[in-house]
Amino acid sequence: MLTPRAEDFPRWYQDLIAKAKLADNGPVRGTMVIRPAGYAIWERMQAEMDARIKAAGAENAYFPLFIPESYLKREAEHVEGFSPELAVVTHGGGKQLAEPVVVRPTSETVIGEFMAKWVDSYRDLPLLLNQWANVVRWELRPRVFLRTSEFLWQEGHTAHATREDARAYARKILHEAYEDLMVNVLGIPVVVGLKTARERFAGATATYTCEGMMGDGKALQLGTSHELGQNFAKAFDISYSSAEGGREHAWTTSWGTSTRMLGGLIMAHGDDNGLRVPPRLAPIQAYVMVVKDGEGVGEAATKLCDALRDAGVRVALDDRTDTAFGRRAVDAELRGYPVRVEVGPRDLAAGNAVVVRRTDGSKAPTPVADVVGAVLAALDADQRALHDQALAFRQSRTTDVATLAEAIEAAATGWARVPWSAVGVAGEAEANGQGVTVRCL
Amino acid sequence: MLTPRAEDFPRWYQDLIAKAKLADNGPVRGTMVIRPAGYAIWERMQAEMDARIKAAGAENAYFPLFIPESYLKREAEHVEGFSPELAVVTHGGGKQLAEPVVVRPTSETVIGEFMAKWVDSYRDLPLLLNQWANVVRWELRPRVFLRTSEFLWQEGHTAHATREDARAYARKILHEAYEDLMVNVLGIPVVVGLKTARERFAGATATYTCEGMMGDGKALQLGTSHELGQNFAKAFDISYSSAEGGREHAWTTSWGTSTRMLGGLIMAHGDDNGLRVPPRLAPIQAYVMVVKDGEGVGEAATKLCDALRDAGVRVALDDRTDTAFGRRAVDAELRGYPVRVEVGPRDLAAGNAVVVRRTDGSKAPTPVADVVGAVLAALDADQRALHDQALAFRQSRTTDVATLAEAIEAAATGWARVPWSAVGVAGEAEANGQGVTVRCL
Ligand SMILES: [Zn+2]
Ligand SMILES: [Zn+2]
Repeated sequence: MLTPRAEDFPRWYQDLIAKAKLADNGPVRGTMVIRPAGYAIWERMQAEMDARIKAAGAENAYFPLFIPESYLKREAEHVEGFSPELAVVTHGGGKQLAEPVVVRPTSETVIGEFMAKWVDSYRDLPLLLNQWANVVRWELRPRVFLRTSEFLWQEGHTAHATREDARAYARKILHEAYEDLMVNVLGIPVVVGLKTARERFAGATATYTCEGMMGDGKALQLGTSHELGQNFAKAFDISYSSAEGGREHAWTTSWGTSTRMLGGLIMAHGDDNGLRVPPRLAPIQAYVMVVKDGEGVGEAATKLCDALRDAGVRVALDDRTDTAFGRRAVDAELRGYPVRVEVGPRDLAAGNAVVVRRTDGSKAPTPVADVVGAVLAALDADQRALHDQALAFRQSRTTDVATLAEAIEAAATGWARVPWSAVGVAGEAEANGQGVTVRCL
Repeated sequence: MLTPRAEDFPRWYQDLIAKAKLADNGPVRGTMVIRPAGYAIWERMQAEMDARIKAAGAENAYFPLFIPESYLKREAEHVEGFSPELAVVTHGGGKQLAEPVVVRPTSETVIGEFMAKWVDSYRDLPLLLNQWANVVRWELRPRVFLRTSEFLWQEGHTAHATREDARAYARKILHEAYEDLMVNVLGIPVVVGLKTARERFAGATATYTCEGMMGDGKALQLGTSHELGQNFAKAFDISYSSAEGGREHAWTTSWGTSTRMLGGLIMAHGDDNGLRVPPRLAPIQAYVMVVKDGEGVGEAATKLCDALRDAGVRVALDDRTDTAFGRRAVDAELRGYPVRVEVGPRDLAAGNAVVVRRTDGSKAPTPVADVVGAVLAALDADQRALHDQALAFRQSRTTDVATLAEAIEAAATGWARVPWSAVGVAGEAEANGQGVTVRCL
């Protein structure tokens, strides 16, 4: 059994990850192993995100893991922000390196260097790039998926002729890729807006964020999109000759989402029985279980699998009847498969299989011929149900307040919506001192 | 223009990569930047490989980039083989690390550690894992795609109850994933077989290889699959309780293919005009070009794109009529799109578009209504044609010989097939001294 959420939320989170076999801690402090059950969900997130990024016109590329230390120093705020988190390679091929190289914490610098080479004329703009990669940011208080020294992510980097075009693209990704994926696939009703100057990315002129409310009422940043102004364009000399013939610096953006979304998924939808994966995201949408062996049972289960697959459902068969059914059912709940179809001798004798929905736990004996329709209806309804539950929870835990003191009090159990005029830079610093952050303007 | 292949093959290779914008050298020696045109081909290789690996029953997972130095030392041959190529991280988060960590050159060790945790009973076997990742092996003589200090790859790692089962799986991947992809998608007629003891992977008991012949008559290793015996199982204590109740060490395998396949693709099929990408692999199969503006030309080109896409063809439209057509056509040849469809006012007035095949350079004026059929037929024929050309070339450059001296002579222009009894371990060392390697038994 998992530690109940109400008893100890962080402990519940760790329990769930271990028991659902989603991930393990790696041998080097702060690193993680993403196990097949966790990675399959990540692959689905990647596929959905990649399609949205390509639809927004960006192309995938790959830049080196190793960045010369000197590159980071070219943008002053950037190096200040990332220096404390760097991993540094000092030896390669059996020799000490002449210049140490850092393991990329993010790739603005190295990509800036190549943008400068590739951009010459206004016809080369916009330049819209994305990469899927691992990055390293040394973590003192690691938590699997949420804060790890190495994580997987996509990072987009674009260069534009004007500030307006850069801003429009940073917002396009924010809404059409990130918000759309989070709301409509992950089922997390994120709040989208600007970060304060204090919470901005190191080197950005504006940082947009998607913030989701987790099951403990706290906020998790699930993705950010940055306007970088001309900061990196000037540091790396990304410039172009304009249609009028002058030489201008470009305007750049960057934007990223990571394996942290796996942590957000768990904490937004999980319950005391385990994970609940929204159907559109789930690698396995319908889990067909042979309850126990019996006349025609295995055959009926296999036929149902085929029929579901033909209907476009991602399906898996569990016919491990040498393992107790109860144990397998508990495991399926832990893993969060949206629908289980239980096929056993007794129900089958009455012409039925049992359709079990993970979202509300309901169990419906269903004529075998109607199972596909029932599963499709359940997948459709439960995608909405998970989102709506998360939205109702967020609303119940969000308070409109007028003063900073009230906001800090409300933040103990959820979110506070407060006018920025009542907070200000000084108020933000005060709130930070009490463990409360301004997440989104 | 590219340097002709006959004049300087390595130079031709570098020219092609630069002019087709496939890749650049990275700032840290030996690293590379994979540009969008190159990465799109890699993504197609990944998709085709990933489907085959999943069909063989393996599941994707992700293990850390950083491996404690001590892990590598547990398998003696392994550490001896990889030590000269390691990149070592000595500082993290602003502090010197208590134990240096290496950037993974391959992941047998860290995955062995977790297999030991996850495998308990014979029911947990076989354990079939794969990961898509970057790895680092410091290179003194780097060449883009072929030998780079960082490269992208998939590495499979499996554990089995018996030697027979491990061997069967290493061979299954070799044939059903690697050979099948290389022959039927990449169009490279690889020779598949065993490596000699001298050429084996560090820590393996047997290494199987897929060797392709490049356009200069030399061999390139395009993928390997290893039986690791119980070497890693003993070093990391991967053991299981058998059905009979005893405790046994598992038998493991590993297998990998990398971005080196991009280099092999270029060198196997490229000609003096650029790359030729086999249609099944090509990210863009049909490149529809507006030759110049004119009555209904853009509209006709767009309609052809839509019709091709509806027929399942991966298609792109080039309507950049502000750039000279000749330059765009040369560029399309460089990039190796299998088929170009040229739509211009003069041909269109006669009801035609011109279908140009990259494989043989043929240009066929084709009634607009027949273009889709002509493109489909060309894609199908040219997939075979590229394979068959490469096979004919390999056969013309392979000589059957009886002695080591003859084999060394034949290797100057191609491959020699010689009985191992005429070579032996001493003969292999002698051949190596003259720059000739025994590639495959
Ligand atoms: Zn929006
Ligand atoms: Zn074969």
